[in-house]
Amino acid sequence: MPKFWFAESDPFAPINYRYKVNKRLFSKKSPYQHVKVFEHDFFGRIMTIDDVVQLADRDEFFYHEMLAHVPLHMHPAPKKVLIIGGGDGGTLREALKHPTVEKAVLIDIDALVIETSKRFFPQVAVAFKSPRATVLNMDGAKYMRETGERFDAVLVDSTDPVGPAKTLSTQDFFKTAANVLTPNGLFAMQTESLHYHIVFINQVQGYLGKVFPSVGLYAAPLATYAGNYWTFSIASKAKVQRWDPVRPAIKGTRIYDEEFHRKAIVPQKARDCFTAIGSGPYKRAAR
Amino acid sequence: MPKFWFAESDPFAPINYRYKVNKRLFSKKSPYQHVKVFEHDFFGRIMTIDDVVQLADRDEFFYHEMLAHVPLHMHPAPKKVLIIGGGDGGTLREALKHPTVEKAVLIDIDALVIETSKRFFPQVAVAFKSPRATVLNMDGAKYMRETGERFDAVLVDSTDPVGPAKTLSTQDFFKTAANVLTPNGLFAMQTESLHYHIVFINQVQGYLGKVFPSVGLYAAPLATYAGNYWTFSIASKAKVQRWDPVRPAIKGTRIYDEEFHRKAIVPQKARDCFTAIGSGPYKRAAR
Repeated sequence: MPKFWFAESDPFAPINYRYKVNKRLFSKKSPYQHVKVFEHDFFGRIMTIDDVVQLADRDEFFYHEMLAHVPLHMHPAPKKVLIIGGGDGGTLREALKHPTVEKAVLIDIDALVIETSKRFFPQVAVAFKSPRATVLNMDGAKYMRETGERFDAVLVDSTDPVGPAKTLSTQDFFKTAANVLTPNGLFAMQTESLHYHIVFINQVQGYLGKVFPSVGLYAAPLATYAGNYWTFSIASKAKVQRWDPVRPAIKGTRIYDEEFHRKAIVPQKARDCFTAIGSGPYKRAAR
Repeated sequence: MPKFWFAESDPFAPINYRYKVNKRLFSKKSPYQHVKVFEHDFFGRIMTIDDVVQLADRDEFFYHEMLAHVPLHMHPAPKKVLIIGGGDGGTLREALKHPTVEKAVLIDIDALVIETSKRFFPQVAVAFKSPRATVLNMDGAKYMRETGERFDAVLVDSTDPVGPAKTLSTQDFFKTAANVLTPNGLFAMQTESLHYHIVFINQVQGYLGKVFPSVGLYAAPLATYAGNYWTFSIASKAKVQRWDPVRPAIKGTRIYDEEFHRKAIVPQKARDCFTAIGSGPYKRAAR
């Protein structure tokens, strides 16, 4: 069968990413989004949502380790973790690697993402089988408003801030998340690319700063997310001086360790540099 | 005028990058390569060589600062710098920001790259005007074999390791470079992407290790180079314990400072992680 191009349809990316794929393995629409799976020689299987790549076999560990382990290593002994989104199960898998975690609740509005992951990405979805995992298909904000449970970490593993994920980067949402955190609980979410989305990043950081006493920014260079200098915003209910790990790295990670964690914290000068550049069109200096 | 797609023709990249450009400003073939310039809303002007993006107005500083300032800040007072390739002038511009540098020699085999940069990227080519700059169009290895000059740093700013740049990643070339370095001189070169080219990176590191007593690896997440987790191999004629800066950052950089330098050094666990993954097709585990 001839290979063909899958081109992303990503309104947020000034570079368009195209993958020469072997075949399309799956395509289905839910009430929320359109989920597809492709097969690619280099990346293995690729899952797209609304034609934007969400994960690939080859490098999914990188994103999931960074989203889960940076906040979880800033807590001395996390017991309960709440994951909003993350229906592929990768963040759940990483959270459950912490032996202290007794319960992880995953709330993804779209059951189709979970079904697709279980069927096509068994090594990502592996933790859905865990007796420590609770999975609900509903609106994450609604769950947080109604639950009486309290969590040591809330991890927001969302798509780009459009469609169902748009409300996950508002100040209201952050307030709701803070309410379900224990007094020294941690919050983390993916916040797009330093190269492309610094205005969005700074907006989120500003909202978080109105809700949490300490807010930080870390980043990792991901291959399959356009913009690739990918950021995660982190916030703490207790005041934090440094965003360094408070305990040794757990076993069983592929790229995460204490050194990688510390180096991921974005230096202030780099943040200032991208803030000065902004997210708009390039302005050529007059000669 | 309608915008149109410029798609890279990059045999080394499993993701194909496409740019929606406003117009093509320039296209000319030299005896060595085909140089083009495009105009893009977000990136400003883009220079391509053989249809692979070499630099863009918006983010060229990032690559050039990292190639020049990491090695130059590991030398207490660099006086003479040799740049092989780098015909756009960006690395030259950064090297000459060091007040101790009395002379920088740039050897690019292709005069067309220099002419194109002077005409379309004056802020990148600005240092060609400096009385401290010497520019020659010839083979870099031949220059090094024949010169009696000695340098505190050799910076190799090359295209991908095909065509004219292929000889710049051989053990012979590294031996030639070591011969023109002063006893505590530093060598640095770009060595492609951790995500895509770990086999090439490890090969270069191995060759460097046969010539230099200390070899290091650092990386920066560049927007316009496919693979984006971009590495630089660094080597020192004198034994080095740590690849940290030995003096405070110079003034006038946009993203480089001591913290960014230290964080750019790739942790051993991350190197091992990518080495285990390799550069070949993805191998799906048997279920």
